[in-house]
Amino acid sequence: MEEQIEMVGRAFVDHYYHLFDHDRSALGSLYQPSSMLSFEGQKILGVEDISAKFKQLPFDQCLHVISTVDLQPSAVAGGIVVFVSGSLQLQGEDHPLRFSEAFHLIPTGQGSYFLQNDIFRLNYG
Amino acid sequence: MEEQIEMVGRAFVDHYYHLFDHDRSALGSLYQPSSMLSFEGQKILGVEDISAKFKQLPFDQCLHVISTVDLQPSAVAGGIVVFVSGSLQLQGEDHPLRFSEAFHLIPTGQGSYFLQNDIFRLNYG
Repeated sequence: MEEQIEMVGRAFVDHYYHLFDHDRSALGSLYQPSSMLSFEGQKILGVEDISAKFKQLPFDQCLHVISTVDLQPSAVAGGIVVFVSGSLQLQGEDHPLRFSEAFHLIPTGQGSYFLQNDIFRLNYG
Repeated sequence: MEEQIEMVGRAFVDHYYHLFDHDRSALGSLYQPSSMLSFEGQKILGVEDISAKFKQLPFDQCLHVISTVDLQPSAVAGGIVVFVSGSLQLQGEDHPLRFSEAFHLIPTGQGSYFLQNDIFRLNYG
C-alpha cells in the first residue's frame, strides 16, 4: 500500500511537470469534467477551461525543479494526496519563482488516475 | 454549495491556527485514528502520535499569519480540500518563516469535520 502510493505518486509528479515543461497542451488529459484547478486564487472547473488556462499562461518555456514531494493515502479508495514544493524557472527571467502545489489523484477505474483537485500557489516573501 | 465551502473552510482555518497558537494540546481533537500528518517530510498516523508530535515541537509560543486560503470541494461528499500559505513567527526569532499547508477536511456525520490529511512544509529559498 505504502509502496504503491510512493510509486504512483512520484511517477505522477514526474509526468505532470514533464508535460507542463515540454507539452503543456497535453496536460488536459489528466483532468475530468469534475476536476477543479485553483491557480493563484483563480478557480477553474472542468477539462476545457483548465486546458484553456494552461494555454493562456503568459510564458512559453518553463522548467519546474522539484524540492519536496509528500504523499498520503486519501479517503477515496486508491486515491492519493500529493503535495509538491519547488521552483519554476521562466524563460528570460533571472530568478526562479518558488511554488507549492497540492493534488488529489483518484483512480479512473481503468488502471490510471485523474486529478480531482489541483491547487497552485507561488510562494512570495 | 460554494458558499458552504467558503464558510466552513475559512472557519476551519481560523480555528486550526488559533488552537495551534493558543492551545496546541487541543489540536488533537481535529484528527481521527485514520488521519495522517506529514510534518516537514515526517509521516505520522493517528490522533495519539499526531498529538504527541505537536507536543514535542521545539518551541512554545508561535503566531501564524495567513496570506492565502484556497478551498475546493473534494471527491468525498461534503469534504473540502484546503490549501493555506502564510508565515510563522516563533518566539525569540527575528524573522518569520514562510509555510504552506494542505488539508483534507471530511464531515464526521455528527455535524462537524475532521482532518483526514494534513501536510505541512516550510518554504525555503
